[in-house]
Amino acid sequence: MPNQPSDPPTPDALPPEFGFIRRHFRTLAGEGALGLTDDAALLRAPAGRELVVAVDTMVEGVHFLPDDPADTVGRKLLRCNLSDLAAMDAAPLGYLLSVTKPPARDEAWFAAFAEGLHADQALYGLSLLGGDTTATSGPLVLSLTILGHVAPGGALRRNGARDGDGIWITGTIGDGALGLRALRGELADPSGFLARRYRLPEPRLGLGLGGIARAAMDVSDGLVQDLGHLARESGVGARIDAASVPLSEAARQAGPDWLATCLTGGDDYELLLAVPPAHDDALRRAAAARGVAVTRIGRFDRTISGVTVQGPSGETMAFARTGWSHL
Amino acid sequence: MPNQPSDPPTPDALPPEFGFIRRHFRTLAGEGALGLTDDAALLRAPAGRELVVAVDTMVEGVHFLPDDPADTVGRKLLRCNLSDLAAMDAAPLGYLLSVTKPPARDEAWFAAFAEGLHADQALYGLSLLGGDTTATSGPLVLSLTILGHVAPGGALRRNGARDGDGIWITGTIGDGALGLRALRGELADPSGFLARRYRLPEPRLGLGLGGIARAAMDVSDGLVQDLGHLARESGVGARIDAASVPLSEAARQAGPDWLATCLTGGDDYELLLAVPPAHDDALRRAAAARGVAVTRIGRFDRTISGVTVQGPSGETMAFARTGWSHL
Repeated sequence: MPNQPSDPPTPDALPPEFGFIRRHFRTLAGEGALGLTDDAALLRAPAGRELVVAVDTMVEGVHFLPDDPADTVGRKLLRCNLSDLAAMDAAPLGYLLSVTKPPARDEAWFAAFAEGLHADQALYGLSLLGGDTTATSGPLVLSLTILGHVAPGGALRRNGARDGDGIWITGTIGDGALGLRALRGELADPSGFLARRYRLPEPRLGLGLGGIARAAMDVSDGLVQDLGHLARESGVGARIDAASVPLSEAARQAGPDWLATCLTGGDDYELLLAVPPAHDDALRRAAAARGVAVTRIGRFDRTISGVTVQGPSGETMAFARTGWSHL
Repeated sequence: MPNQPSDPPTPDALPPEFGFIRRHFRTLAGEGALGLTDDAALLRAPAGRELVVAVDTMVEGVHFLPDDPADTVGRKLLRCNLSDLAAMDAAPLGYLLSVTKPPARDEAWFAAFAEGLHADQALYGLSLLGGDTTATSGPLVLSLTILGHVAPGGALRRNGARDGDGIWITGTIGDGALGLRALRGELADPSGFLARRYRLPEPRLGLGLGGIARAAMDVSDGLVQDLGHLARESGVGARIDAASVPLSEAARQAGPDWLATCLTGGDDYELLLAVPPAHDDALRRAAAARGVAVTRIGRFDRTISGVTVQGPSGETMAFARTGWSHL
């Protein structure tokens, strides 16, 4: 018989994925999601704004640890995507979520995962628009597509840095990379600060960087490598001073042996900015208004290519690798 | 040493994922994609239109066979998403692609995959906006987010069917499900027609169903199950006549033992429509203008709940399961 089922007959019941979506995700759905019942979501872009769209995927064991709390996995997934919007000076509209689920991830895990999303939806002012649920024999894969909006022509890009622009960074660098090592038992983290920074990055939304920064990107794969991308796309080189890279108290306590990890480890989700010197004060004011620290760590320089990092003793630092590659 | 690398040092080279993206995906990038260099894509919705957004994920071994030709995997991924737009009477704008790659999928595979996308981009008039590339130890996971646009208020939904509306279907039903069985060696497919229909569904875009149909969805998980969703969301029941369900010549040749598979197997990507009888001629004309067959297979009926299928000999058919569940 061709249609011999492997599952018990359920002629009238809803397929299991409907229950799964209903139990965990329907309360996350907002305007335009159509209650997650239809083939697609509907939305209108705010009048006179450009749309910004990005997708970021996280794989268990690659982007998060299998035993990371589920609520922080959901929040980190959303925050990494929000960080992409922040890098463009965009504001969030909504998101779509694709869950590719191994059998071992149970109901309790997804309930906590959705709770994390719920908390961050409220914090950042967006909601779920739609998604898809599939099964896999491999590790959990979570893919999130985010939609945002920005003033027409106002999106910050990576290619706008000019010779002489200051290189600025928000927050502190290296905490996420050290947090990952701490969770792996390679580093002490008595207060848990570093692990928290790894699990819950803070997207730097709403700084109002348009008219202040000339280029921006978020640091996700390592400061030195990501700065290299921004410099290359802008057609300039970059010089930074390792001693001026802002480190948290916890990162400083880890000691100088961990400096290279901070500069190249990634998982920062801080913004890297190119700011002409005349805008320094405007940047400081905009950041202060949001309670975000900003630090100048160097300058773009058209006379060099690539990134030169001056170490704490004045030497040029060399790195075995400058950041993370996903392949 | 904390920053001991596991890969050979590549201080100045681009990370491998950049080369991967450049080699395979940059030529797919269109307006708004910013050359795939930035954190997000930029786009403007066509003036006075609503946006439509959907995501569909395909997992190797679940949604496609590990040895399906790579170009058809790319095309099927795009077409499944285009089918979601078609169901809403929307037109395509662009898409984002997330590739979660196991080591065994090589360069040649992705070159062919991108070639398939390239061909279908030209066919359907859209381009790549952005994406993400990650690695996995599990099967290949491909997630595509599609953006489209529709006349404001004109999107077809699942909840619009009314008592007495005809149940219509585009194309033929069951070819995809039979094609999968043929590729598994369970069924003869001398011409390869069924396998082609499994690998290359035809999204029914551009039919202009607004003002003709009252509800629509695409049949992806099995006709009986999907019709049940549309009926339930609309608050009515549905009666269909199995003998009137359009089958291809190849599906008819498979014989009556395969009828249940055709009705419940899924992978059709045909449109299921609720059309008031007064609009029958308008529907036929709209479909004929695009060279698409449409067939009335039954009627929505508020006096019953669920889906009743009358079999070829007049009996009510019972199904072990009515469609596919992804969990």
